[in-house]
Amino acid sequence: MALAAAVRVPASVLLRAGARLPGVALGLTERVDGWGDGARRFGSQRVLVEPDAGAGVAVMKLKNPPVNTLSLEFLTELVICLEKLENDKSFRGVVLTSDCPGVFSAGLDLTEMCGKSPAHYAEYWKAVQELWLQFYQSNLVLVSAINGACPAGGCLMTLTCDYRVLADNPRYCIGLNETQLGIVAPFWFKDTLENVIGHRAAERALQLGLLFPPAEALQVGIVDQVVPEEQVQSTALSAIAQWMTIPDHARQLTKAMMRKATASRLITQRDADVQNFVSFISKDSIQKSLQLYLERLKEKKG
Amino acid sequence: MALAAAVRVPASVLLRAGARLPGVALGLTERVDGWGDGARRFGSQRVLVEPDAGAGVAVMKLKNPPVNTLSLEFLTELVICLEKLENDKSFRGVVLTSDCPGVFSAGLDLTEMCGKSPAHYAEYWKAVQELWLQFYQSNLVLVSAINGACPAGGCLMTLTCDYRVLADNPRYCIGLNETQLGIVAPFWFKDTLENVIGHRAAERALQLGLLFPPAEALQVGIVDQVVPEEQVQSTALSAIAQWMTIPDHARQLTKAMMRKATASRLITQRDADVQNFVSFISKDSIQKSLQLYLERLKEKKG
Amino acid sequence: MALAAAVRVPASVLLRAGARLPGVALGLTERVDGWGDGARRFGSQRVLVEPDAGAGVAVMKLKNPPVNTLSLEFLTELVICLEKLENDKSFRGVVLTSDCPGVFSAGLDLTEMCGKSPAHYAEYWKAVQELWLQFYQSNLVLVSAINGACPAGGCLMTLTCDYRVLADNPRYCIGLNETQLGIVAPFWFKDTLENVIGHRAAERALQLGLLFPPAEALQVGIVDQVVPEEQVQSTALSAIAQWMTIPDHARQLTKAMMRKATASRLITQRDADVQNFVSFISKDSIQKSLQLYLERLKEKKG
Repeated sequence: MALAAAVRVPASVLLRAGARLPGVALGLTERVDGWGDGARRFGSQRVLVEPDAGAGVAVMKLKNPPVNTLSLEFLTELVICLEKLENDKSFRGVVLTSDCPGVFSAGLDLTEMCGKSPAHYAEYWKAVQELWLQFYQSNLVLVSAINGACPAGGCLMTLTCDYRVLADNPRYCIGLNETQLGIVAPFWFKDTLENVIGHRAAERALQLGLLFPPAEALQVGIVDQVVPEEQVQSTALSAIAQWMTIPDHARQLTKAMMRKATASRLITQRDADVQNFVSFISKDSIQKSLQLYLERLKEKKG
Repeated sequence: MALAAAVRVPASVLLRAGARLPGVALGLTERVDGWGDGARRFGSQRVLVEPDAGAGVAVMKLKNPPVNTLSLEFLTELVICLEKLENDKSFRGVVLTSDCPGVFSAGLDLTEMCGKSPAHYAEYWKAVQELWLQFYQSNLVLVSAINGACPAGGCLMTLTCDYRVLADNPRYCIGLNETQLGIVAPFWFKDTLENVIGHRAAERALQLGLLFPPAEALQVGIVDQVVPEEQVQSTALSAIAQWMTIPDHARQLTKAMMRKATASRLITQRDADVQNFVSFISKDSIQKSLQLYLERLKEKKG
Repeated sequence: MALAAAVRVPASVLLRAGARLPGVALGLTERVDGWGDGARRFGSQRVLVEPDAGAGVAVMKLKNPPVNTLSLEFLTELVICLEKLENDKSFRGVVLTSDCPGVFSAGLDLTEMCGKSPAHYAEYWKAVQELWLQFYQSNLVLVSAINGACPAGGCLMTLTCDYRVLADNPRYCIGLNETQLGIVAPFWFKDTLENVIGHRAAERALQLGLLFPPAEALQVGIVDQVVPEEQVQSTALSAIAQWMTIPDHARQLTKAMMRKATASRLITQRDADVQNFVSFISKDSIQKSLQLYLERLKEKKG
């Protein structure tokens, strides 16, 4: 994993970056030995970590209500939490799930992309890249227990996992629906989806911005299993148990071999990808339509 | 789309090339405003264009009887028609279908490859490349309404589309059957098929020159839908309506992102690919077998 | 096939290499004209070749009891046999099957990787590479009649074929199960599997070291057909008959086009791949676990 080691920006750098922003209070606490009440002490303000001592598995619950929007702070906390689990040898696997009813994650935070400075857009986009790089190249086994709607950036997160279990609820759709909002999924979102469902299905899904309801999601292969809602987490834990039977070293090298080319594509184009995002999102037309969208969203809620 | 813009040979160049050939009479007419009887005025001798004003969709009917063979003139007309639709902002999508009963297109025109000069072979092959580049990289939504047999070059045309609807008639087979004729599909035919049905299925289909009847075509994924014959065009129009709901700019950038690598492979090797074709097709053995094949075809008809 | 011609190490080189090892007695006999009793005279000690004169097909039976382990000698014989068939114009196709009941091939020979010198490991690995290069790029049609368990290296052999028929016996599982033994399939094993079952299925199968029973093997596409055990060979012969209907030249060029990129990846990294294998397998930890595994295997048998 020399590659992974070389390219990962340490979370501390992101933290420093985050610290420049008002309102960022990560509230990370150090891990304490003895897992009795560890669930609350590990993790952060927006990420609950519930460790299963015996199994070597932790359940990471996304808790950024109401819809787990991936704000800059939330992205940073997610990356730090995963990094801590990665560095803690008592863990070999993570189940990713949501603590917000009905939503796994609504995806990227549009307020981070609207009415801010180019420097802010750049910082935000680096954090999105960092999340993907950290999760996609994780040495841990990652399994998604998708217990809610899972569009766009939420979908991207689950696509970085090794296995995906979706709750059988017709409202829990999953997909990269960027085009429906008039925006374009970056190439590494595309690569990740293509690796999972193949070129043809990805081409159609991305162009149409498809959100797949459970049965279709299973058929196209964007998730691996669909189960009744109350069994999502237990099924994910059963699934991860199978991965736990494989010697870590061999599994990790195999995973790295499968994903190296895809990760390298972003790594070598990271700065250009940021520039690309900033110049796109700074456009007047895009800013106007985002503002309109956000205003409508507020009215809807209000 | 800087790429697409840079690599497209303007149709006018092809036109001039075509003008050197005897018998080429494109008969293209300019578009006139007011679509009342536009169907006949737009398009060309061999391509009927039936615009649906409201929907922003045009139906392009291939009309090069008896079997829509892709002669040099026909290729040129197809490219020009698409280019005109592409440049006409009232259109966002095209349904491609056949006006020749029982055949979508019999594919490349063997008479263009037999008993002619190397210069002619080169010119012909450039026109085939041009068709593929223009169609594969089109900013329009292209949907095929496959209402007849669809082998070889005919299949290639439909593979460039965004969606394929096939009539449920056991005689309407689709596939790249080149090896059955003793010839080899070029790498970009292969790439296009592989992008649609995956590596394994493409390897088998190409080696065996498989022509898939409707049920198999659907199963292998070379078409997206199979419907009763009388519903092919209406189904294609319904399908394209879904694509029309997506903002053009986002959809076009997404499509370009999906197809850029494949298109670039031909673009960078275009001349070598022409040379390769010319030297292959000029071989005595290939010329003899083509002649034999054409003579048999004549006898069959006669 | 200039590529293939350029990169294939002649089997005679391998033979000379093999001749340095004690206990290597290839016992290859020259082909004699007249196929009456050719079956026993062609082939070698460990590879039975049963020619079907009329069909242009030979059945190659792996006979290295008890489980067709791919020892250095066996690998060498397999490569030489295929090379002879390749050079013999009376053959156009080969059905690959096992003469050892219940096992197609147990895969690589762990005794070749344990307690030997680095030079031996290097020699052994070159022979594994050579087998793959020769089989994957063969101009012959190769069809596997998988009449027994088919893990690891055994699976790799069948993945090089053009078509795979598996006997419907729940004990006949197939897959690249390397991670289950704590080792990592090399990148070209991965590439070969990915070309057959796609990226996502390969990622999961390789990480978990999955061995697919027949129904699952068919579903994931790692085999093309599952038939009752007594029909495996006859089905393979029927399948190969379809491939025989295609003109060789066109089929071979098509096959080469499909596989060139994958083969080239190993060819350009061949030495590095050997070094990589030698340094991995020479590690104390790996040697210890292999020794332990082999001792347990002996006890089990004893």
